[in-house]
Amino acid sequence: MSPSADRRGSRTERVDRLADLVIERELGAMLVTSPVSIEYLTGFTGTNGALIVGEDRRLFVTDPRYREWVADGIEGLEVEILQGDWLKGLAGLIGSKTGIEDGFMTVRVETKLAEHGPAGIELIPSGELVEGLRRVKDPVEIELIAEASKLADQVLGEVLAEGLAGRTEAEVAGVITGRIRQEGGEPSFPPIVAAGPNSASPHAEPSARVIEAGEPVILDLGAKLDGYCSDCTRTVFTGPPDDRAREVYGIVVESNETALSETAAGVGCAALDEVARGVIERAGFGDRFVHGLGHGVGLEVHEEPRLGPRSSEQLLERDVVTIEPGIYIPGELGVRVEDLVLVGESGVETNFSSHSKDLLEVG
Amino acid sequence: MSPSADRRGSRTERVDRLADLVIERELGAMLVTSPVSIEYLTGFTGTNGALIVGEDRRLFVTDPRYREWVADGIEGLEVEILQGDWLKGLAGLIGSKTGIEDGFMTVRVETKLAEHGPAGIELIPSGELVEGLRRVKDPVEIELIAEASKLADQVLGEVLAEGLAGRTEAEVAGVITGRIRQEGGEPSFPPIVAAGPNSASPHAEPSARVIEAGEPVILDLGAKLDGYCSDCTRTVFTGPPDDRAREVYGIVVESNETALSETAAGVGCAALDEVARGVIERAGFGDRFVHGLGHGVGLEVHEEPRLGPRSSEQLLERDVVTIEPGIYIPGELGVRVEDLVLVGESGVETNFSSHSKDLLEVG
Repeated sequence: MSPSADRRGSRTERVDRLADLVIERELGAMLVTSPVSIEYLTGFTGTNGALIVGEDRRLFVTDPRYREWVADGIEGLEVEILQGDWLKGLAGLIGSKTGIEDGFMTVRVETKLAEHGPAGIELIPSGELVEGLRRVKDPVEIELIAEASKLADQVLGEVLAEGLAGRTEAEVAGVITGRIRQEGGEPSFPPIVAAGPNSASPHAEPSARVIEAGEPVILDLGAKLDGYCSDCTRTVFTGPPDDRAREVYGIVVESNETALSETAAGVGCAALDEVARGVIERAGFGDRFVHGLGHGVGLEVHEEPRLGPRSSEQLLERDVVTIEPGIYIPGELGVRVEDLVLVGESGVETNFSSHSKDLLEVG
Repeated sequence: MSPSADRRGSRTERVDRLADLVIERELGAMLVTSPVSIEYLTGFTGTNGALIVGEDRRLFVTDPRYREWVADGIEGLEVEILQGDWLKGLAGLIGSKTGIEDGFMTVRVETKLAEHGPAGIELIPSGELVEGLRRVKDPVEIELIAEASKLADQVLGEVLAEGLAGRTEAEVAGVITGRIRQEGGEPSFPPIVAAGPNSASPHAEPSARVIEAGEPVILDLGAKLDGYCSDCTRTVFTGPPDDRAREVYGIVVESNETALSETAAGVGCAALDEVARGVIERAGFGDRFVHGLGHGVGLEVHEEPRLGPRSSEQLLERDVVTIEPGIYIPGELGVRVEDLVLVGESGVETNFSSHSKDLLEVG
């Protein structure tokens, strides 16, 4: 079976699973409107589409601009082209008890659908249904994430081998982006290259500052290949770090590895964050770990689940998540170490990030 | 005054104008949460920020990841770093009658703000306030849009001079993207290069199909430079077009030019669409113009106002909009011609698109 046939089969199964959830929740139907969920469920990547899934309903809707695109149909779905006002048209297609993607739909769209929908319409926040399906990666998705990770790791290896000192952060970031594109991918987000004091900013933008010798450099990058993202961070040193930097680096790696050793289906996302945070707190840097432990990765580089102190979810088997603790000391230095992993029944099933976490000195 | 001082000054004025609108609407305050509106009003380009603007209030809020970014303050604004749950924190900072950006805020966020906000909280859809401000471009913005247009036009000129026949659509699109980046810009959207039968799809993705001699080719591209976008489309022919293609081309250009001649502040967006559509309808192709006439362009490549049959707005002085009629005949050919213009009091103030609309044959 060809990979594209594989993908089509996966999509039909995904729509079937969504229909099961719709029945379980006693919704009339689910209205899917976010482009990324539409891509996940149908393969359509245009800018305007909607999918209505009920017990006996599988309706894909788009507008006349995409007439050609859907001319050959989409497997397993009825297709309708809506002329005229899009939201009024959609409102005319939904029943009175319709689930909506509340994490995507704006207040303005909800208001208009409610206004033009059938009498007594209830729009029921149900975005977690599709988000839940998207969390559990199937074999085709896992393969694509592995390929995207491999590409990003290869580019990171090349860039480190060429040395960092003497180049600007922006130059290095540009090289990373260019190499990912050369290999047929896209960056899954603008790469972060943050050296010296800039490394203390978790979301630093690559600057025109020249990277000097003896500095920590955070490199946070990912590739997007055939729709799927990767995400990985390493912190390296352009020359021997001082004792303080060495200590901070060791704590972050310990935090990362301790969290990895506790990662498994059934573990609470907040509990796992607490495991990583505990290592950093006990070392006296608790107030310097200023973000959550990680996030899901798939068609989007940030998706469900979120791993942080206020998460209420548990990890599921086949979640793909980042584990990325960090310590940031303003004006001085920052260290972040991030792996991308596939969650298994009783531990990490696959760690997609292949670079060593031993303290690395580069040129 | 340096350009960056110019931009800071513009931003302070924008926030003042928003405060005037908040008073006029008798809101307690406006809560601004969309990244593009935040960038417009404050210059902040991080992933997480909010702005609360009331009669005596100018509060910018972000999270600890951006502590360094805001360390030097933002001119004219009080700055607060929110620890802990972001939405609960925001809910604690807003009053009982708060305007929200309903065209951006999701149902999920609204629900959570309402749950954690002060007793009797009303969240009032008011996104049109910021959208209205963003429509009216100030001199700094007009200059940036002009520069982005100039860059895209230059790249289009180079690509046409090199000839299209014998190359794939994807190859030509790749060259366009590469040249825009070489010049320090980014594409404002993935360029469209659609030749022969593919030109009949208004949103065609550049394919691996080789462009042949004697075909229409739609090239739709824009650059983003320093935050601001451009957008322009030309349809050219790789050799002499037949009578039918020549006729269709002439009708689209006439539609474009007729609409341009009627473009002015005070004209209804639906009425202008009707002017352009009328030309195409009278020529017998009414059902082949399958999209609206145009859209606003600024920090986003698609922003307010929308120019289409169902628009309820009027053009304002200093709106920047596209005028882009098209005719698409499935299986045969498509033609679209798009200019980007600054709306003046009594006509087009500036047409940013410099390429000729005479029928052009290229190699």
